[in-house]
Amino acid sequence: MAQKVVIIGGVALGPKAACRCLRLAPDTELTLVDENTFISYGGCGLPYYVSGEIQALDALRSTNYQVVRDPDFFARMKGFKVRNQTRALSIDRVKKCVRVRDLVTQAEEDLPYDKLVLACGAKPRMPNVDGHDLSHVYTLTKLEDAQNIRKACENGSVTEAVIVGGGFIGLESAVALADMWGVKVTVLEMDEHLMRSVLPESMGLMAENDLVQHNVRVCKNEKLLKIEGNDGKVQRVVTNKQTIDAQLVIMAAGFIPNGELAKQAGLETIANGAIKVDASMRTSDPDIYAGGDCCSIQNIITGKYGYLPLGSLSNRQGRIIGSNLAGINDTFPGYVGTWAIKLFDLSIASTGLTIDRARLEGFDAISVCVEQLDRAHFYPEKDMMCLEIVVEKGTRRVLGMQGASLNGHGLKARIDAVSACLQYAKPTVNDISNLEVGYAPPFASAMDVVNVAGNVADNVLSGRFTPITGQDFVKLWKERADNHIFFIDARPAQAGKAMEAKNADWHAIPLEEMEARLSELPRDREIAIICNTGLRSFESLLILQRKGITNIVNSLGGMQALKQMGLDRDL
Amino acid sequence: MAQKVVIIGGVALGPKAACRCLRLAPDTELTLVDENTFISYGGCGLPYYVSGEIQALDALRSTNYQVVRDPDFFARMKGFKVRNQTRALSIDRVKKCVRVRDLVTQAEEDLPYDKLVLACGAKPRMPNVDGHDLSHVYTLTKLEDAQNIRKACENGSVTEAVIVGGGFIGLESAVALADMWGVKVTVLEMDEHLMRSVLPESMGLMAENDLVQHNVRVCKNEKLLKIEGNDGKVQRVVTNKQTIDAQLVIMAAGFIPNGELAKQAGLETIANGAIKVDASMRTSDPDIYAGGDCCSIQNIITGKYGYLPLGSLSNRQGRIIGSNLAGINDTFPGYVGTWAIKLFDLSIASTGLTIDRARLEGFDAISVCVEQLDRAHFYPEKDMMCLEIVVEKGTRRVLGMQGASLNGHGLKARIDAVSACLQYAKPTVNDISNLEVGYAPPFASAMDVVNVAGNVADNVLSGRFTPITGQDFVKLWKERADNHIFFIDARPAQAGKAMEAKNADWHAIPLEEMEARLSELPRDREIAIICNTGLRSFESLLILQRKGITNIVNSLGGMQALKQMGLDRDL
Repeated sequence: MAQKVVIIGGVALGPKAACRCLRLAPDTELTLVDENTFISYGGCGLPYYVSGEIQALDALRSTNYQVVRDPDFFARMKGFKVRNQTRALSIDRVKKCVRVRDLVTQAEEDLPYDKLVLACGAKPRMPNVDGHDLSHVYTLTKLEDAQNIRKACENGSVTEAVIVGGGFIGLESAVALADMWGVKVTVLEMDEHLMRSVLPESMGLMAENDLVQHNVRVCKNEKLLKIEGNDGKVQRVVTNKQTIDAQLVIMAAGFIPNGELAKQAGLETIANGAIKVDASMRTSDPDIYAGGDCCSIQNIITGKYGYLPLGSLSNRQGRIIGSNLAGINDTFPGYVGTWAIKLFDLSIASTGLTIDRARLEGFDAISVCVEQLDRAHFYPEKDMMCLEIVVEKGTRRVLGMQGASLNGHGLKARIDAVSACLQYAKPTVNDISNLEVGYAPPFASAMDVVNVAGNVADNVLSGRFTPITGQDFVKLWKERADNHIFFIDARPAQAGKAMEAKNADWHAIPLEEMEARLSELPRDREIAIICNTGLRSFESLLILQRKGITNIVNSLGGMQALKQMGLDRDL
Repeated sequence: MAQKVVIIGGVALGPKAACRCLRLAPDTELTLVDENTFISYGGCGLPYYVSGEIQALDALRSTNYQVVRDPDFFARMKGFKVRNQTRALSIDRVKKCVRVRDLVTQAEEDLPYDKLVLACGAKPRMPNVDGHDLSHVYTLTKLEDAQNIRKACENGSVTEAVIVGGGFIGLESAVALADMWGVKVTVLEMDEHLMRSVLPESMGLMAENDLVQHNVRVCKNEKLLKIEGNDGKVQRVVTNKQTIDAQLVIMAAGFIPNGELAKQAGLETIANGAIKVDASMRTSDPDIYAGGDCCSIQNIITGKYGYLPLGSLSNRQGRIIGSNLAGINDTFPGYVGTWAIKLFDLSIASTGLTIDRARLEGFDAISVCVEQLDRAHFYPEKDMMCLEIVVEKGTRRVLGMQGASLNGHGLKARIDAVSACLQYAKPTVNDISNLEVGYAPPFASAMDVVNVAGNVADNVLSGRFTPITGQDFVKLWKERADNHIFFIDARPAQAGKAMEAKNADWHAIPLEEMEARLSELPRDREIAIICNTGLRSFESLLILQRKGITNIVNSLGGMQALKQMGLDRDL
């Protein structure tokens, strides 16, 4: 008798698992249920439909070869039944069936299964404030949301919008609205900086600077109190600090995994409700698989169960589940947490842990930031690239890397290479120093920026110099009346002199003149050195150290990092 | 007493090792000798100076912070002595000294060392043919070469050029001359296809197609016989097939490592003369290090000693040697062989072994080729990317990957991630299927092309279908009168119909109609399926297999691969 498979959820993982299963075991009786009308769509593409970059909504639910993936497509081309507008109500693990309700006819029935797959996804977190149910308050997770938001932009009824939440979808939405529709956008972020849970402060500031440069207002440490409207339609947003006029609000305050069905059925979940699965993507019931945004998998770096709702993980997990349904034993290695985002001009990417996350996880970790050109410095086209490497002190083990650059694909090259190391090895800083990446002047430096990140981390861990972040350098500069630090700008004379002319506390001593001008340096004060990227300042401090001057801090990433963060204005 | 270090060779590795050593152990007495006038230059940048993309030659021997690296710079800023125009004649390992000759004064002397570093580089292979010593016959490995070639272009005396050798420097030179100066360029390649030693035939054809599309003539299987001139200046090139007018010839027939000094001193070398070093970059004499283009290091994949003269390896090895000179024990992990090249529009990159190399090394290997968009198919900007994955059959171990795309940085992202796996793990195809790479629609598909390469290899290894290369598909098509194969085009009707109209042996049966038109298919003939990228043809053959039709070959990479190779013209 043919095996019966039921899959609950039809966005990313569900259809993938179903197709893979039927390719390998074509006689499977497979039914996929989903409570929505539209299934199998690229949710990650929604901001690009809102912006107008994607013309037709159907593009998001079409195959690579331009066929729309509706229930009929799956029945005809893939050999399984899709029951959309059908809600799964409960799971009976003893009888092995799922109670479902047809949302059109309201008829209920039991679907028996041999194997069940939970691909229930996640729902957007909706802050429980007055006015959250007003018209023109949206989330951006469904095709219908995107359609409504774009319509509102197209008919000109939106000139001001508030985005609640400075994470992935929040920032992508801000870009979509401001870039293509000229909407005056305010991003509200409760936390100290944007993308707090996935980026270090430095790169949160870089993201913010890119937004601000493109006329998006960013309000940090600010809490949504209520949304006010007129005739049921949003008019303004009230925070703990101000009232902002808005004809559109997008709620992008994170996700809650849809783990209720599983929990009610007695399956194991983690604190946030996500369903725990093993390496085979099996839940605590061996006949029930789960994957995608509703599930929790093991973080390869910490060894703990974690949560990372990403379409790319869903797709790969779907294939694994499909194989396992068909009796081919396949496993998923867990995740390290690799992602990328494109804002206006700036792209940001990350793999593994941030410094804050690493410390929360109990690692005695440091991070160092490097700035270098992404291509050979003599090659005419090139961009700065900032990489921050996170390292455990004693073991020198690399725990993560974050980066920002105008060259998004080039940034992805560095981050993906480190991601591969984190996934299948336990790299040390020396492994990153020696990471073999493709080199030619149009693509990289001979000593590539990713290798330099390893080298600088090695130098810091070995105590060869004391680094400070760009943010701390600016802080020290602002507090110079109290800390009496002696500030040196080691850039070529012209750049340093311009700063010196503005403020006599700034000392332009180019690297080339460092040795000759030693007598100008105080022996009883701490010295802070900065240059353009951190290279000349490092060379300078080596000279000073050789001369016995060792009370020095070196600003990592130099003026370039300050510029990317928008902090150069504060000097 | 301070340790005495002598370094022979001052292009890439030598200065790097010297600077690193002096940073860590500033009291080292370090002398670097080099027989040339110019030292410490970016040899990889020479083609970009020839093309004019790099304006001034000094850019190639300047630091990131725009200071020219001449002997005075190293003495003043780095604390070591450079003796350029000084040739090392011999090494006395017993007395521990190097005999050198000042090429200006002809004076000879012995330089004593505690540690010696051989950074002698490699010399271009010069085919021993009549006329190789004519004026305007160049190699492109020194600043002076680049200067002379550019001058000749600038003064308009070159309208036709021949490049001897279709490897890295040959192709970069061809692009430089044709793109910026409009020179009519012919590339002469002795072998069956371009970049034969580092690329599979498919990608050699893609490289060729990019060149041909930009009016570079490519002559394969053709041997240089002699060069003829007038008044000592080159006039034409004679091959075994033709005579080609040329006012400029660039010899780019590979490199010979400068291992003579080492060999004469009794140090171990491999067959091509390269100096064998261990993981510490030590030669068979523990007081003598070697690195860069003169040395042979271990190939991580084969475990054998190999040779890969790349500036990026030199720089990283230089740092290791510098650390070791200073008494900090550091090791180099060997190489997997990762590189990238930009031609006109096309970029090509590779890591690990090609299918030909893998078989030469004794692996029972296959390769499969995939074509997919590099970004989400619904994202407006995107390019095709072709990846060929090389896999050992029994173990499913991945041995290498090559790729070609118009999106060079994006290609590098995929190749570098696989490179990292090859360097620090022994990945299987499943590891590549699950490789966690940064995803967002502007950068990748949710199921990224690199994962798809793993998936397709998995399907082929598991016997789920029989692949053929695009080249073989075209061959079968040309021989259809003999092989009686039934050819199916599974693309959307319009594309297939256009081909069908030209030739009735071509059967346009779109994937969507496959099941309904089963009766049109012969049961007694082999079937060959093609589509746009290989996806629809795979789906089609699954339908046919389910219906009991199994004698099918599937053209990997589809019409896109044929187009990239320029083979679509042959259909």
